[in-house]
Amino acid sequence: MSDYNLDLHRQAANTIRGLTMDAVQKAGEGHPGMPMGMADVAVVLWTQFLRHNPQDPTWPDRDRFVLSAGHGSMLIYSLLHLSGYDLPLEELKRFRQWDSKTPGHPENFHTIGVETTTGPLGQGITNAVGMALAERWLAARFNRPDHAIVDHYTYVIAGDGDLMEGISQEAASLAGHLGLSKLIVLYDDNRITIDGTTDIAFTEDVMARFAAYGWHTQKVNGHDPLAVKAAIESARAEGERPSIIACRTHIGYGSPNKQDTSGVHGSALGDEEIVLTKQALDWPTEPLFYIPEAARDFMKMDGRFQSEWEIVWENYLVNYPEDAKRFKQFLNGELPAHWDDILPTFEVDKSMATRASSGQVLNAIAPHVPYLLGGSADLTGSNKTDLKGEAALAKDDFSGRYIYFGVREHAMGGILNGMSLHGGIRPYGGTFLVFSDYMRGSVRLSALMGEPVIYVFTHDSIGLGTDGPTHQPVEHIMSLRAMPNMTVIRPADGAETAVAWRLALENKSGPTSLVLTRQGVPNLDRSKYAAAAGAAKGAYVLSDAPNPQVLLLATGSEVQIALEAQEKLAEKGVAARVVSMPSWELFAAQDAAYQESVLPTSVTARVSIEAGVTLGWERYLGLSGTAIGLERYGASAPHKDIFQNLGLTADTMVEAALALLG
Amino acid sequence: MSDYNLDLHRQAANTIRGLTMDAVQKAGEGHPGMPMGMADVAVVLWTQFLRHNPQDPTWPDRDRFVLSAGHGSMLIYSLLHLSGYDLPLEELKRFRQWDSKTPGHPENFHTIGVETTTGPLGQGITNAVGMALAERWLAARFNRPDHAIVDHYTYVIAGDGDLMEGISQEAASLAGHLGLSKLIVLYDDNRITIDGTTDIAFTEDVMARFAAYGWHTQKVNGHDPLAVKAAIESARAEGERPSIIACRTHIGYGSPNKQDTSGVHGSALGDEEIVLTKQALDWPTEPLFYIPEAARDFMKMDGRFQSEWEIVWENYLVNYPEDAKRFKQFLNGELPAHWDDILPTFEVDKSMATRASSGQVLNAIAPHVPYLLGGSADLTGSNKTDLKGEAALAKDDFSGRYIYFGVREHAMGGILNGMSLHGGIRPYGGTFLVFSDYMRGSVRLSALMGEPVIYVFTHDSIGLGTDGPTHQPVEHIMSLRAMPNMTVIRPADGAETAVAWRLALENKSGPTSLVLTRQGVPNLDRSKYAAAAGAAKGAYVLSDAPNPQVLLLATGSEVQIALEAQEKLAEKGVAARVVSMPSWELFAAQDAAYQESVLPTSVTARVSIEAGVTLGWERYLGLSGTAIGLERYGASAPHKDIFQNLGLTADTMVEAALALLG
Repeated sequence: MSDYNLDLHRQAANTIRGLTMDAVQKAGEGHPGMPMGMADVAVVLWTQFLRHNPQDPTWPDRDRFVLSAGHGSMLIYSLLHLSGYDLPLEELKRFRQWDSKTPGHPENFHTIGVETTTGPLGQGITNAVGMALAERWLAARFNRPDHAIVDHYTYVIAGDGDLMEGISQEAASLAGHLGLSKLIVLYDDNRITIDGTTDIAFTEDVMARFAAYGWHTQKVNGHDPLAVKAAIESARAEGERPSIIACRTHIGYGSPNKQDTSGVHGSALGDEEIVLTKQALDWPTEPLFYIPEAARDFMKMDGRFQSEWEIVWENYLVNYPEDAKRFKQFLNGELPAHWDDILPTFEVDKSMATRASSGQVLNAIAPHVPYLLGGSADLTGSNKTDLKGEAALAKDDFSGRYIYFGVREHAMGGILNGMSLHGGIRPYGGTFLVFSDYMRGSVRLSALMGEPVIYVFTHDSIGLGTDGPTHQPVEHIMSLRAMPNMTVIRPADGAETAVAWRLALENKSGPTSLVLTRQGVPNLDRSKYAAAAGAAKGAYVLSDAPNPQVLLLATGSEVQIALEAQEKLAEKGVAARVVSMPSWELFAAQDAAYQESVLPTSVTARVSIEAGVTLGWERYLGLSGTAIGLERYGASAPHKDIFQNLGLTADTMVEAALALLG
Repeated sequence: MSDYNLDLHRQAANTIRGLTMDAVQKAGEGHPGMPMGMADVAVVLWTQFLRHNPQDPTWPDRDRFVLSAGHGSMLIYSLLHLSGYDLPLEELKRFRQWDSKTPGHPENFHTIGVETTTGPLGQGITNAVGMALAERWLAARFNRPDHAIVDHYTYVIAGDGDLMEGISQEAASLAGHLGLSKLIVLYDDNRITIDGTTDIAFTEDVMARFAAYGWHTQKVNGHDPLAVKAAIESARAEGERPSIIACRTHIGYGSPNKQDTSGVHGSALGDEEIVLTKQALDWPTEPLFYIPEAARDFMKMDGRFQSEWEIVWENYLVNYPEDAKRFKQFLNGELPAHWDDILPTFEVDKSMATRASSGQVLNAIAPHVPYLLGGSADLTGSNKTDLKGEAALAKDDFSGRYIYFGVREHAMGGILNGMSLHGGIRPYGGTFLVFSDYMRGSVRLSALMGEPVIYVFTHDSIGLGTDGPTHQPVEHIMSLRAMPNMTVIRPADGAETAVAWRLALENKSGPTSLVLTRQGVPNLDRSKYAAAAGAAKGAYVLSDAPNPQVLLLATGSEVQIALEAQEKLAEKGVAARVVSMPSWELFAAQDAAYQESVLPTSVTARVSIEAGVTLGWERYLGLSGTAIGLERYGASAPHKDIFQNLGLTADTMVEAALALLG
């Protein structure tokens, strides 16, 4: 420890404080307090421990660093700039400006070196649990004696807000359960939140809570570099438990008038106070954005860690060529070439829930996509997400391929994001569709980041029956459709479900929500109806009639109702076309000619049916069509009674069609 | 303790087990395991402690009982029936059937005696925190020496799933912080979840965690009635901390083949196993739904507790007539008669964020609605939710009217629901609109239950500026509109904001989301434009033109853009009408004639603008209109740059209008 240069440390930390104050002041907005308070901790971590390579930010075995308290973004921008990432000082001077690389909160899809997008509190630390889980899982699969090709830490800086959020508590409990000992959280214990001191709302014993989760806990003075260094060393030495180190810090460290106040949390200090602070820190007041060369040299990171790893990797290539090939397959996410040989087919006309079809498809795919890893939030049997013959991950055994997330939907979402961000894994997770609400914060981040997480949302409507309205999604399908970059697929039968899984796996630029029934639906006779391959275009003519007078639009379990209505209309001499619309997003991506071929502008008599809110259906119906759906919550009863009593029937469709046709 | 009749206890507990098994078997679906396991605990609680009156389920000072593990609904239905509520045995025999009073999960709006709607895990215990908070707040305001008119306990039965959920962890932390000592949680520690034993995912030290939150903790054998009784007595005697009692139970207690298995959690036992279980319990196998008179008598509750309270209340009426009047005002939620005297007006053309207008309106209203109690999830200054001159609630002081919820959005929602359900309080809570995602599980329950919680969602679009896409809601307004029984109001200026608050307070049948800007918007000159009173109809003609050729539709901060577009179109000789549409739900409630008067069918050239997803706008545009909005996430930049760069401008509207007009 004694060889740690405290003068260089001080210069580096003050450089971060100066960059932070100046950038926030220039932007006029931002959060200077946290970077100023955690600068000491961050400098110790980045200079003494973090194994990374600014020249190759995608090096697979780099340590992961997550700034969970994302509002303190100037901390990570300063660290990235100083350590040598492609983030020029000019970008720091453009903090929070249009198209700069320094947005208000860190965005991994926008700024090289940022591992995940943070800001919504609790998400970063949860992503980190996913990253640490991914590391452990890949290590269990690929490391060989003297060939530890997967062997890195995941470090987090988290604040009070992160730890107050429920998602982080769920994630911490699971991390403790799984013994993710290479996860190290540096808790910025500054006792200040936006509303004031933490004692106005947050007086629990945080360390005791984490100990109860099975974590290794320490407390240090966050402004004592040697103490911080020793604590991180102890955390790394801990082989059984994840670690949290409460770093007692002063928010806005150095500011004579604002340190330790909520005023410095989220507002610029003002020119005058910045001068006073720099003076108090014994730091040049000019130039702005001052970086002494000594500090830059101290923070600079070369490629030495990656070089060390490359040697191991080269040996691995020689000694374990098959494993190396497989490892690359995992990292690249290579998909099977011949889907038709893999995907199951389904017995025609047999009644089968699409969740059951999904389970069969998943199990057919799993052997061919060995990096597929997922689980359920304590609804395995209901979601049909289990992989037959694969064990669940346990503290002492990561050889399996299934995760019992517990009743922790929000953490599941954040962990799936972290697994995906880590690389080498294609994650999926299941719960009831209604509980997509519980995890919406994380699901949105999947979409915003473009992470290809697969969400398996079963029990997708009133069709789940007697569990009643608390469990019956009504608004959820449309709410997911409203989320940019989310692909929602609600298949009508087994064949469409197989297509849906293929599409989900092929979608690498964003998440997919598979929306599946609890109740049985008939596997459609594709010799009578159009092939399910049409589902890949989002919507397709499932069953046509010559010169259709009316279009019947439906998704999922309501497609069978539309087909029944079509027959009834035919009996009355009305030609109706049935369009199955499993995915609005995929349909919107088709060209205008295809869209017109499915939904001809000339046919304005249109009736849709979906067991959910009708808001949004006007996109395909216009003002002249009729949407059959629900403008209310469901009810507890056998599902057929609910469909009947709430008017989701073929007869209702027929009546609506006839009314439109006059 | 020795006078507790263990034989009657056994009969009552077995009656509950029998009713549960038989009802679930008859329904074919349900969750028998928990009621069978917790029957002993529940019988002790309901016979020895619970102060309630089945003849008057609305008695304000009754103890509150919350079955947080709502899947075990047959437990509460059995308890309600046996203790004498209006829930006939016939209803238990119609468990989970259409229109029965015994839905799959307890619904307070459907079944008398049920205090809240549970099933989504973690919500019930969080509601209970709100109820206990409400009790404490009302007690602080109204109790007088020897006149404790508000003095009751809140009891919860919670399961593993409840305690795994983040929402319950947030709520437990706040309950500990506030020292809600009259909250007593009976934790069904049965070590079984749907996926298997809890040790597959939940190995934390739950009691240590609650101790870390500042709770009083105990562990008992949940099948030892005297031990349970003693533990509840200890919990009641605890004067500083909320209590949790871990009741070690056997799920499916008595079933020879299914006790202690996840198989009995959520499935009927089967006729054969039911017989075996009844035999093992030394219980008659017939008739089904067997209730011995002795058990019924043992469980029966008369009005004695309420009668005791009535005496205190009568004295209170005499000795504190003004307080009594005020107490009734609180319970009845009486609103001011003369809003015009109360609501502020706003300086015309001054730029002012609607969150700021909202803060002024709230503070103008607060003295006239003294039972209005709320707070923010650590964004008080941003949400403008503080009440000037009112202290925040603290462990030792509940005299104030403000709640620092901490960074705990989901718990805030559940606590607001609990406060509302308790009665005597009109609750509100603030956070950023984007974080409505974090609390959506609770918000949905406000809507499902019809609880008139007021949500103050500020920072409502890309208009929040440099904080960037993680903080910029895009899909949230439409997603809230998709939620049945949620009233969304997005006012355009201060005057509409005042109307919005009035509407929110007048809406007593469901929640209201006030959607408010961070950035300034001009307070419209109402001598030039239509009066803001029109906002009460959801949409109104704000600025007309003779024989309008095009309709310009807008909400909130985009209304000013529509007005600018109207002027630009006028310069080009195009007559455009601007319609301000703050609330789609309120507009939908108007008669067809009014709707037609605002949006004449004859005018098909329609352009909408809203800084969010366009999905849904087709409801008012049809297929021939143009929606200007966002099909992507926002960006970090000053808000004017974002509006400009993403095309949310008057020029875009003008172009769209001209294109439609050919």
